[in-house]
Amino acid sequence: MQNEIIKVSSRSMPKLVAGAIAAVIREGGIAEVQAVGAGATNQAVKAVAIARTYMAAEDVDIICRPMFTEITIDDVEKTAIQLNVEKII
Amino acid sequence: MQNEIIKVSSRSMPKLVAGAIAAVIREGGIAEVQAVGAGATNQAVKAVAIARTYMAAEDVDIICRPMFTEITIDDVEKTAIQLNVEKII
Repeated sequence: MQNEIIKVSSRSMPKLVAGAIAAVIREGGIAEVQAVGAGATNQAVKAVAIARTYMAAEDVDIICRPMFTEITIDDVEKTAIQLNVEKII
Repeated sequence: MQNEIIKVSSRSMPKLVAGAIAAVIREGGIAEVQAVGAGATNQAVKAVAIARTYMAAEDVDIICRPMFTEITIDDVEKTAIQLNVEKII
């Protein structure tokens, strides 16, 4: 299973993003959740918090590693926050 | 070493918060980083990303567990994001 990039905007619904994260974790992958800006980062963190409750119900503990990453949007380079979300073994 | 609560606002400086997180980790504790609102949560996540680089230089990997928590500010109950930051053993 490869890592999967999940892009989040300030208009993303945290519950939907949480479902996408949980799907990647269930398949044994690492969800790389990317957000640019405070509103998007807030939705991304809420999504991980919700995904943790989904996975806790399946007795799976997930953690995240936040880091900075450079991404290109419309030919403009921007600094994004990336949350690598994975299962703790 | 007890857990330590670190409160972050939208005006907090991520590098200073990162230093506070790193200090708790070095003492063997868990940093409970709390933020209310998108701006504060964004600064909190940036702080954890920076703290990860500080600790990586010391060969220590730190992760975070985001969750929702209820806190009281000026007698008003608010939902905060809490990032439990700890060392991976």
